[in-house]
Amino acid sequence: MNTLIRMAFRGTAYHGFQVQKNAPTVCAALQDAMQGVFGVRPDVKGCSRTDAGVHARDFCVSFRHQTDIPCEKLPLALNSRLPEDIRVRTAQRVPEDFHARYSAVEKEYEYVILNALIEDVFARGLYYRAPGPLGAAAMDAAGRALVGCHDFAAFMSSGSDVQDTRRTVTRLCVRRAGDRVILAVAADGFLYNMVRIIAGTLLAVGQGRMGCADVENALALKDRAKAGNTLPAKGLFLHRVTYPEAQLSVNS
Amino acid sequence: MNTLIRMAFRGTAYHGFQVQKNAPTVCAALQDAMQGVFGVRPDVKGCSRTDAGVHARDFCVSFRHQTDIPCEKLPLALNSRLPEDIRVRTAQRVPEDFHARYSAVEKEYEYVILNALIEDVFARGLYYRAPGPLGAAAMDAAGRALVGCHDFAAFMSSGSDVQDTRRTVTRLCVRRAGDRVILAVAADGFLYNMVRIIAGTLLAVGQGRMGCADVENALALKDRAKAGNTLPAKGLFLHRVTYPEAQLSVNS
Repeated sequence: MNTLIRMAFRGTAYHGFQVQKNAPTVCAALQDAMQGVFGVRPDVKGCSRTDAGVHARDFCVSFRHQTDIPCEKLPLALNSRLPEDIRVRTAQRVPEDFHARYSAVEKEYEYVILNALIEDVFARGLYYRAPGPLGAAAMDAAGRALVGCHDFAAFMSSGSDVQDTRRTVTRLCVRRAGDRVILAVAADGFLYNMVRIIAGTLLAVGQGRMGCADVENALALKDRAKAGNTLPAKGLFLHRVTYPEAQLSVNS
Repeated sequence: MNTLIRMAFRGTAYHGFQVQKNAPTVCAALQDAMQGVFGVRPDVKGCSRTDAGVHARDFCVSFRHQTDIPCEKLPLALNSRLPEDIRVRTAQRVPEDFHARYSAVEKEYEYVILNALIEDVFARGLYYRAPGPLGAAAMDAAGRALVGCHDFAAFMSSGSDVQDTRRTVTRLCVRRAGDRVILAVAADGFLYNMVRIIAGTLLAVGQGRMGCADVENALALKDRAKAGNTLPAKGLFLHRVTYPEAQLSVNS
C-alpha cells in the first residue's frame, strides 16, 4: 500500500534528509521508527534532499508497506518511536504511482531573518540574525524580478550536476512580522542552495548594498559572482509541498 | 551606580533564578558574566524567584557597580559572556533606592497551552500540551472571577511561608492564537505556584471538567483541593514587570 506521510522536523541535529554514511539523517531516524512499527525497513522517497541544518514544516515522504495498520494510527505509532525533533503530522493512502518527489508540482520555502541586535533565546537555530536597518519593502520589490520562468544559474552553488537551470518561481514575497523579516518563495523546483542565495541577495538589497538592477543583472548574466552570499541553513524552512488533487485521490 | 537590566531567558536548563548550591541558576550565570565584565562579583536583586524550568521574556535585575562602563554597552558586554539561553536586552541607570523586586508594582505572566495532537518541534519545552477540545472562551469567562483583590490561598502550593495570601489580580484573560491557548495574568504579586494552579484550574474549565461556579467556590473556600492541578513549569513565562516612572527616573 502506497502511503504519504507529512512531517515537521527541526534540522539542527541532522545532515539533511537523505541517508548518509556516518552522519545522522532524518531519513535514517524515520526508517528506524518504521522498522519498529512495521517489522521491516521500508524504502522511502523524500520530496527533496534538504541540506544539513534545514528545517521543515511540511516534509513529504512516500513509502510502501504491507501491514493492516490504518493510516490514521500511523502518526502516533511513528511519533512514539521518533526523536523529539521529528514529528509525523499526517498519513494518507495514495495511488500506486504517487511519488513524494516526482508528483510534487510546487514547493514553498521560507527564509527567516531576525532583524534585531539581541538573539531570541526562544528560537535559537531557527533564523539568521541581521542587526541594523533592513528594508523589507525594498527586498520585496527587488524579489519581483525573480518571479516567472528564468534561468537561475546565478542562484545555484557549484557542486550540482543539474543540466537545466531553468525554474519557474510562482511567488516570491518578503514581509516583516515584528523583528522577523520573512522571505517566502514558491517554485516548481529549486536549484542547489537557490533559496539561501536568493535570501543573501535580497538581504544585501534590504541593507542597501545592492539594488533592484543588480538583482536583474545577476539573473540576466547567469553569474553566481553577481548574486549575494549564501545565507546559513538554520534560517531555512521547507514550508509547504503541493500535489495535484488527482495524484492524491485513491478510488477505493 | 544602581543599574537595572532587563533579560530574557529560556529556563529549561536552570533551577530558577535564585542561587542554589549544586544546581545551575540564572543568577549564578549572570554573576559569572558580571565578574568577567566588572572584575568583581556584584550582589544582584532579582524581580522574583521563578521556579526551575520557568521562562522569562522580561526578567528584571538591579545591582550596583563602580565602573565607568556606560549602560548602553552593558547588554553586548554581558551577552558575550552569557550562555546562549540567557540574554540581557537593556540596561539603564536607576535611582539609588530602586530595587528590582520591591519597586515593582505589577508583574504579568503568560501560560502557554498547545492544543494539538502532535508536539511542535520548533518550540519544545515552551508550552504544556493538551490535546482534545479546549474552550478558550469558557476559560476566559471563568477567569473573570479571579480578577480583583482576593485571598488566593486556594491557588497556592504548600511549602510557602507567606502569611498574607491576599493579592490583587489586575487583569486575567485567555485567548486562542491558532493551536495555542494563552492565559495572561497580571497582579501586584503572586503566591507560590499561583499562575500554574490558575492555569490548571482554567484548563479543567476549558475541558469541561470544572465550571465557573467551581472556580468561585475554590476561591471562596480558600481550599487548595477544590482548585485544579499545578501545570508544569515549562509553559510559564514571566512576560512583563512594571515599575512606576518615578522609580525609574534619575535626575542627573
